[in-house]
Amino acid sequence: MKSVTPVRSLMSVLAHSVVSPPPIWMMRQAGRYLPEYQSVRKRVGSFWAMCMTPEIAAEVTLQPVERFDLDAAILFSDILVVPHALGQPVRFEEGLGPVLGEFRGEETLERDVVIWDQRLAPVYAALRASRSGLDSAKALIGFAGAPWTLAAYMLEGKGSPDQRAAKLFAYRQPEQFGRLLQMLADAVSFHLVRQLEQGADAVQIFDSWAGGLPDAEFERWVITPTVSVVSSVRERCAGARIIGFPRAVTQTQYERYASATGVDCVGIDTATSIAWAAERLGNYGAIQGNLDPIALIAGGKALDRAVERIMTEARLVPHIFNLGHGVLPETPPENVARVVARVRGTA
Amino acid sequence: MKSVTPVRSLMSVLAHSVVSPPPIWMMRQAGRYLPEYQSVRKRVGSFWAMCMTPEIAAEVTLQPVERFDLDAAILFSDILVVPHALGQPVRFEEGLGPVLGEFRGEETLERDVVIWDQRLAPVYAALRASRSGLDSAKALIGFAGAPWTLAAYMLEGKGSPDQRAAKLFAYRQPEQFGRLLQMLADAVSFHLVRQLEQGADAVQIFDSWAGGLPDAEFERWVITPTVSVVSSVRERCAGARIIGFPRAVTQTQYERYASATGVDCVGIDTATSIAWAAERLGNYGAIQGNLDPIALIAGGKALDRAVERIMTEARLVPHIFNLGHGVLPETPPENVARVVARVRGTA
Repeated sequence: MKSVTPVRSLMSVLAHSVVSPPPIWMMRQAGRYLPEYQSVRKRVGSFWAMCMTPEIAAEVTLQPVERFDLDAAILFSDILVVPHALGQPVRFEEGLGPVLGEFRGEETLERDVVIWDQRLAPVYAALRASRSGLDSAKALIGFAGAPWTLAAYMLEGKGSPDQRAAKLFAYRQPEQFGRLLQMLADAVSFHLVRQLEQGADAVQIFDSWAGGLPDAEFERWVITPTVSVVSSVRERCAGARIIGFPRAVTQTQYERYASATGVDCVGIDTATSIAWAAERLGNYGAIQGNLDPIALIAGGKALDRAVERIMTEARLVPHIFNLGHGVLPETPPENVARVVARVRGTA
Repeated sequence: MKSVTPVRSLMSVLAHSVVSPPPIWMMRQAGRYLPEYQSVRKRVGSFWAMCMTPEIAAEVTLQPVERFDLDAAILFSDILVVPHALGQPVRFEEGLGPVLGEFRGEETLERDVVIWDQRLAPVYAALRASRSGLDSAKALIGFAGAPWTLAAYMLEGKGSPDQRAAKLFAYRQPEQFGRLLQMLADAVSFHLVRQLEQGADAVQIFDSWAGGLPDAEFERWVITPTVSVVSSVRERCAGARIIGFPRAVTQTQYERYASATGVDCVGIDTATSIAWAAERLGNYGAIQGNLDPIALIAGGKALDRAVERIMTEARLVPHIFNLGHGVLPETPPENVARVVARVRGTA
C-alpha cells in the first residue's frame, strides 16, 4: 500500500536523529476545536460511531494534517477500543466521557485473538484508509492505552484521576492484578502490531494516568507491562518505532521509563522541563511534547514565548514538537497554525 | 492561653531536629471516614456551617487526636475561607464540592483587614477553642490555601484539576494576574498570622494545584507569592514555623520550592520518592508526607510495606509522618490506628 516514501522527518527523529526544524504534530489534533470535525460529528452523531466507521475515522484523522500541514497524522480512535475488544462494554455519554460496563474479573475477558481482530477490524480499516489518503511524506501514528491506564478505566468504569479502584485492587490482590496487566499487555501488543502491519509508521503508548504512583508501584504497574508491550511488539515487528507517554510522572520515573522500556521517544507533560528532559533523557532517544494546551488556547505572547522556549531547550536532541497533553475544545485553530509557522520559522 | 508546654515533637522536627519515631498527623484527619465526624455533620447539616461554628469546628478538630493519639491537630476549616473574607461568595454543594460566585476582578475584592478579621472571626474562635481543648503536648496546625491554588478556585468558580481559567487569565493578562496573586498573598499572610497569634503552633500552606505548571510559570505563580507569604508572616511572627505543600510538582520544582521559599518543612505527594526528598530536600529543613491515601484504604501488607518504606527512607532527616494527600472518606479508621502504631513501633 505504501508508495515510495520521501523522508518522513518524524521517522528520522524516531531513529534518533536531530532534525531542524523538528517535526510537529499535536495530541488530539483531530478534535472538537475544528469546525470540520464538528460538522462530521453532527452528521454521524456519536464519538464512538466516528471511531468505528472507517471512512469517517479516516476523514477526521486527515483533517488537521490538511488544514495545518502537520508532519504526522494520528489515527482517530480511542484507547478504550482495547477493553471493547476484550468484551467489556464501552459507551460514551455526551459531556460525561466514557462509561464502561462492570468489570467481572480478568478471567471473564475475551482471550481469542480472532475475536479481538474482528472487533477491532473497523479500526484497522480506518488506519488503512488514513494511510492511503495521507501524503507519503507524512507519518501515520497508531496508538493504544498502556495496561495501567486501561486497568484504571476498566476497574473504575470511567475516567479516574486518582485511579482509586485500580490501586485498591492492585494493593489488595497484587497477583490477580499482575495477571490483568499481563493480559492487557498482550492485547495492547496485539493492537499495536496490527496497526503497524496495516500501515502505521509508528505507534504511541498513552499512559495518561501513570502519575501519582510511588516508585515501587510505578515499577510494577507501569514499567513491567510497558517493557512487555515494547518487547513483544518488536518481536513481531522488527524495528518498530514506539513513542511512550507516561504523563505527569516524576523525573526519577521519567528517567527510569526512558532507560528501561526501550521506547524510541518519551512524551513529556506540561510541567516537566524540556531542558531537563533534553539533558537527562536525550541519550536514550527522542523527546516529544511539553507545550501547555492552555497556552495554546491563550495565544499571543505567552504562546510565542512557550514555543520559543521549547525550540531552544530541545534544539540539540532528537525532538518532536507536541503538546504536554491533548488539544482542548476551546482552542482557536489559528493558534495551532501560528505554532506550526513559528516552529518552521515561517511566521 | 497556652500552658507550660512539654515537648511537642512536631515542633522539634520543624526546628529541623531528627526525632525518632517521627511525629505523625494526617491531612484531612478530621473527616467523613470517622463515625463521630459523621454524627456531628448530620446534626449541623453542612460542611460550611461546621467550619463557621467555633465549638463545632473545635470538636471536630480534636476528634482524630482523641481517637488516634496523633501528635498534631489541624484546624477543621477550609482554604476557601480566604475568598470568603475577600467577598467572593462560597457555598458547598453536597457531592459537588465548593461553588464560588462569579469573580469580578481583583479590584472588587475587599481590602479592609478589619472586615477580613470580622469575616474570619469564627475561624479564629474555633482555633482558640481547639488549642484550649488540646493536650499541651500536641501541636495545633493552622493553614491557608496558597495564592495560586486560591486563584485557581476563584477564577474557575470551583475545583479545577487543570486550572484552566486561572492559567488563561494569567497567560493573557500577566500584570493583572500578578496583582491578584499579590493581594491573595497579603490576605493569606494575614490569615496565617492571625492563626499563629491565637494559638496555632505552626501553619501549613496548601498549594494543592501547583502541579502541571511549566517552570517559568511555577516561578511566577507559586514561588514568588509563597516567598511573599512566608516573609510577611515571619515579619509579624518572628520564628513562625511554616510547612509548605506544593502538591504534585516536579522534582526540579520541589527543590526550587525548598530552597527559595524559606518554609521549615516541605510536604511530599504520593509519587515523589521520600528517599529522594530526604537526600535532596533534607538540607533545607524537614519533609512530611508521601503515604498513598489509597494504600491507607487498602490496609494489609501493602499498607505495612508503604509505612515501613517511608520510615526507612526518611530516618536520617527531620521528618513528619503524613499522607501524600488527604484521608479519603472510604478509609477504615482501624487502618489509621494501625499506621500510628506501626510508626511508633507499638504494633
